[in-house]
Amino acid sequence: MKHVTFAGRLVILGFGSIGQGVLPLVLRHVGMDATRITIVTAEERGRDVAKANGIRFVVQPVTRENYRAVLEPMLGEGDFLLNLSVDVSSVALMELCRERGTLYLDTCIEPWAGGYTDTSLSPSLRSNYALRETALEQRRNGHGPGAPTAVITHGANPGLVTHFVKQALLDIARDTGRAVDAPADRAGWGALMQDLGVKVVHIAERDTQASHVHKKVGEFVNTWSIDGFVGEGCQPAELGWGSHEKALPPDGRRHEFGSDAAIYLMRPGASTRVRTWTPKEGPFHGFLITHNESISIADYFTVRDGDAVAFRPTVHYAYHPCDDAVISVHELAGKNWHMQPNKRLMMEEIVAGTDELGVLLMGHEKGIYWYGSRLSIQEARTLAPYNNATSLQVCVAVLGGLIWALENPARGVVEPEELDFRRILEIAEPYLGEVAGTYGDWTPLQDRGVLFPEDVDTDDPWQFKNFRVV
Amino acid sequence: MKHVTFAGRLVILGFGSIGQGVLPLVLRHVGMDATRITIVTAEERGRDVAKANGIRFVVQPVTRENYRAVLEPMLGEGDFLLNLSVDVSSVALMELCRERGTLYLDTCIEPWAGGYTDTSLSPSLRSNYALRETALEQRRNGHGPGAPTAVITHGANPGLVTHFVKQALLDIARDTGRAVDAPADRAGWGALMQDLGVKVVHIAERDTQASHVHKKVGEFVNTWSIDGFVGEGCQPAELGWGSHEKALPPDGRRHEFGSDAAIYLMRPGASTRVRTWTPKEGPFHGFLITHNESISIADYFTVRDGDAVAFRPTVHYAYHPCDDAVISVHELAGKNWHMQPNKRLMMEEIVAGTDELGVLLMGHEKGIYWYGSRLSIQEARTLAPYNNATSLQVCVAVLGGLIWALENPARGVVEPEELDFRRILEIAEPYLGEVAGTYGDWTPLQDRGVLFPEDVDTDDPWQFKNFRVV
Ligand SMILES: NC(=O)c1ccc[n+]([C@@H]2O[C@H](COP(=O)([O-])OP(=O)(O)OC[C@H]3O[C@@H](n4cnc5c(N)ncnc54)[C@H](O)[C@@H]3O)[C@@H](O)[C@H]2O)c1
Ligand SMILES: NC(=O)c1ccc[n+]([C@@H]2O[C@H](COP(=O)([O-])OP(=O)(O)OC[C@H]3O[C@@H](n4cnc5c(N)ncnc54)[C@H](O)[C@@H]3O)[C@@H](O)[C@H]2O)c1
Repeated sequence: MKHVTFAGRLVILGFGSIGQGVLPLVLRHVGMDATRITIVTAEERGRDVAKANGIRFVVQPVTRENYRAVLEPMLGEGDFLLNLSVDVSSVALMELCRERGTLYLDTCIEPWAGGYTDTSLSPSLRSNYALRETALEQRRNGHGPGAPTAVITHGANPGLVTHFVKQALLDIARDTGRAVDAPADRAGWGALMQDLGVKVVHIAERDTQASHVHKKVGEFVNTWSIDGFVGEGCQPAELGWGSHEKALPPDGRRHEFGSDAAIYLMRPGASTRVRTWTPKEGPFHGFLITHNESISIADYFTVRDGDAVAFRPTVHYAYHPCDDAVISVHELAGKNWHMQPNKRLMMEEIVAGTDELGVLLMGHEKGIYWYGSRLSIQEARTLAPYNNATSLQVCVAVLGGLIWALENPARGVVEPEELDFRRILEIAEPYLGEVAGTYGDWTPLQDRGVLFPEDVDTDDPWQFKNFRVV
Repeated sequence: MKHVTFAGRLVILGFGSIGQGVLPLVLRHVGMDATRITIVTAEERGRDVAKANGIRFVVQPVTRENYRAVLEPMLGEGDFLLNLSVDVSSVALMELCRERGTLYLDTCIEPWAGGYTDTSLSPSLRSNYALRETALEQRRNGHGPGAPTAVITHGANPGLVTHFVKQALLDIARDTGRAVDAPADRAGWGALMQDLGVKVVHIAERDTQASHVHKKVGEFVNTWSIDGFVGEGCQPAELGWGSHEKALPPDGRRHEFGSDAAIYLMRPGASTRVRTWTPKEGPFHGFLITHNESISIADYFTVRDGDAVAFRPTVHYAYHPCDDAVISVHELAGKNWHMQPNKRLMMEEIVAGTDELGVLLMGHEKGIYWYGSRLSIQEARTLAPYNNATSLQVCVAVLGGLIWALENPARGVVEPEELDFRRILEIAEPYLGEVAGTYGDWTPLQDRGVLFPEDVDTDDPWQFKNFRVV
C-alpha cells in the first residue's frame, strides 16, 4: 500500500543495516520510480541488495572536503536526502539541503568522523546536548518554518519513542479517569505529564536476539551499527534532568549553554549501568547510553513558570543490547575504549530473540507504565527483507518520518516531538509486532540492600541515584 | 603411569564437572582397584560416567543431619574422602575424617547450603576469610601435624596457583641475577618475594571457551560449577591486603579476628571489576571474586618484624570467566542476585577457546610477570575424557594433591602453600597445555584518563585503587 507519491529524486546516504532495511519499505510504501533513487555509501557492503532492487549504487565516502561536490549534483528543489550514514556531519548536510530546497531526514545528529571522541573538545562539547544545540541553531539560520522540512533524529530511538510517550500519557490519563483528548501543543503535553505525576521516563530496551555463531575475541557484535553504538557509548552519559531530583550526581555536570534540559556525567555511557524494567524481561541492568531523545523529550515536556522550571521529567536510555553486544562492551571497556579490530553486524545468523523497545513512565498514580513494541526476529523476517528486529523498528520509523516530511514539506528543522504522533504510529504499527502497554509495581528499590547495605533514597524511589548501578 | 598405589577406600563426594573430570585421572595415575571407589552425590548427573568406569554410584544428598550416618560406614583408617561437592560443610567433613583416621582433600572451604548468602551473618562472617579461620582452627583441635592429612582448597585456584607463584618467584630471581635455590621455608619465601619487590599478585584468568549454543534468557552458563561460582560471587569481594597500600578502599573493611592478612569490600565480588592482564589476552576487566588463595598467599608471604607486618603483597583474583558466564553474571546482577531458573554447565557443546590461568606478579624490577597454564579445549579433550579446559586444570591439581596426601599421610590440615610445589607441578604439567612465563610492561595506568579524567594514583601504579574499575 502506497502512503504517498513522490516525484523527486531520493538520495540514500549510507547503506548499512538501516539503509538496506529501509529500502524495501520505501519501495513498498512510497509511490516513486526506483530509477530516481541513488545510494551513496562508503563501501561495497549492500551492493547486492541495491542491485537486486535495481537501485544505482555509488561508492564514495563523503567527507568534510568533498560532500558538496559529491551531493550537490544529486540534490535540488523538492528532492530528498535520507541520511543513514555514520561519520558525516548532519548539520553540514542540513545546511546543504536548506540551500538546495531539498527535504532531509536523519536518525541521529552525527558529527564528522572522530567527533564523538575528539578529546580536544570538552566532554560537554562532545555531548549530544551540544550536537542538538547546533542542529536547532539552524532554525535561527533560515531553516525554520517555511523552509524545507528537515526531520532530525527520527529512527526508533531517538524517534518513535517520543510518539510512544505521547500514546502512553493518553493511556494513563484514560486509566486514571482523566480526559483523553490529545493536547494540541507542547504546553498541553507538558501539563498533561505534570498532571499525571510522571517523574521519570526511561527508554527501556531489552534486545534478546542471539545467534549460533559465538562472538570471537577481538570482535564487536551488535544488531545494528557497531560504529554508531561505539561512538555514542564513548560519549558522556547524558540524561534529561528532572525537576524532582534532589541532588546532582557526584560526577554530574550542567552545560553552560543551551536549553539546560539535560546533564551529563563525566564518564562514558557504555560504562554506566542503570536499573530498569520491561514487561517481558522484568528488572534488568541497562546502559545509560546518551541519546538525543533523553534531551528532546525532557525539553519538550518541561513546564515553565515564567523563567523557572515548574516541571521536567528525568529522561534517559536504559539499553540492554543483545547479549553479544554486552560482552563486546565489556571487552571494549577492558581495552580502555580502543575499538576491537573486527566487527560483525548480526543479521542472517540470528536464530532467536525479540527486541522489546518502549518507554517506561514512572512515578504516576498507577506506578509504572511501559508502552512499546515487542518484535521477534521471526516476525521481522516475515514483515520485510534485509532486516532484523532492531533494524525494522528503526526503518519503519524512518519510513514514517519520510512520509510525514513529504506530506509536510515546509516545516524547517523539526524534532520527533513536533511530528504528528498518530500519523507516524499509524504507518509504523504494522511493522512493530506486538504494540502494547503494561502497568507494573516495580521500583528501583525492589530487592535492594539484601546482601549488603546500599546507599538508597527510600523516601523517593524515583531519584536517579536509586536507578544507578554502582 | 601410576604415581602411587593406594590400598584404602576412596569416597568421591559430589560428581559434577570436577568429580567426573577427576575420575579418569585417578584411575590412570593411582594404583587402586576401581571397586574400592564409591561416588556419593546429590543427583543422577554423572551416573553414565560412573557406570562406564565400573564405579559404585550412590545418590544421597548429604546434609548437616545425615552426613555422619551416610559417610561413617564408608570411611575408616587410611581411607580417603575426596570432597568435590557443593553445599556440604568442609569443616564438618574434616572433623569426621580426623576422628576416623581418614585422609581428606577439598578444593574450597564450603559452608553448609545457603552459608554464602546467609544474611543472618555479617559480611565478615560470610567471607572466605572467616571460613578459612574455622578450617585452620582445626589444627588447634587435634588436626595438626601427626594427624591424618587434610589438604584444603587444592584445585586450580585455590591450589595450583600457589605453586605457580613459587615458580614465578624463582624465575624472576633467576632473570634478575639472584640466587635461584628454592627457599626452604615460609620465612624464606616471604623474604624472596619482598626482596624481588613484588607488590601485587593477581590470579589472572581469561577463559575464552565458547559454544554454538547461545545462552538463553534465564539461564546461567559456565565452564564449571554454577552453584559454586554464584555462591562465591555473592560473597563479599576479598583481597589479601598489601603493605604498600596507602589507604583502605572506601568500602573496604578489616576483620576483627584472625590473621588480618586480608580485607573485604562491602559488596559482592560478582559486581566488582578490576583491571588485569594475561599474555594472550592483553589488558582486560576481570571480576574480583573472593577466593581462598587471595588470603592464604597474602598470609604465607607476609614478612614480619616482631609483631609488625614488614611486607605483604596485595593478592586477589581477577577472573574473566567464559563470555556466557560474564553475561550470566550481568543478568544475575540485574535480578539483584536472584539466581536464574536454569543452569547449563558447558561441556560437549564447547567449540573453541582456551583457559589462560596464571599468576601475575607486579611491581618488581622487570615490571610484570605472568606465569601459568594456557590450555585449549582441543588439547584438554585429547588429554582426558569428561573434561573441558577449565575442569582439567582443576582436576589435575586435585590429582596432585591427592597423590601428595597419600605420600604424606600424617600432616594434618594443610593449605596449598605447605605442599611440595615441585611435586604437584610435576604431576600436573602434562595436563596443563602450554605452561610458560611472560614478562610485560603493562600497568593499570596504561591508557587511563583519555576520554575523561580519572581518579588515579600516578605516583604508584600498584595501588589497588588503580586496578579497580569504577
Ligand atoms: N535513531 C535510531 O533509532 C537509530 C537506530 C539505529 C541506527 N541509527 C543511526 O543510523 C545510522 C546508520 O546505522 P546503521 O546501523 O545502518 O549503520 P552501519 O554501520 O550498518 O552502516 C553505516 C553506513 O554508513 C556508510 N558510511 C560510513 N562512512 C561514510 C561516509 N563518510 N560517507 C558515506 N557513507 C558512509 C557505511 O558505508 C555504511 O553503509 C547511524 O548513524 C546510527 O547511529 C539510529
Ligand atoms: N579450587 C578450584 O580451582 C575449583 C575449581 C572448580 C570447582 N571448585 C569447587 O569444586 C566443587 C565442585 O565443582 P563442580 O564444578 O564439580 O560443581 P558442580 O556444580 O558441577 O557439581 C557439584 C556436585 O555436588 C553434588 N552435590 C550437591 N549438593 C550435594 C550434597 N548435599 N551432598 C552431596 N553432593 C552434593 C552435586 O550433585 C554435583 O554432583 C565446588 O565446590 C567448586 O567450588 C574448585
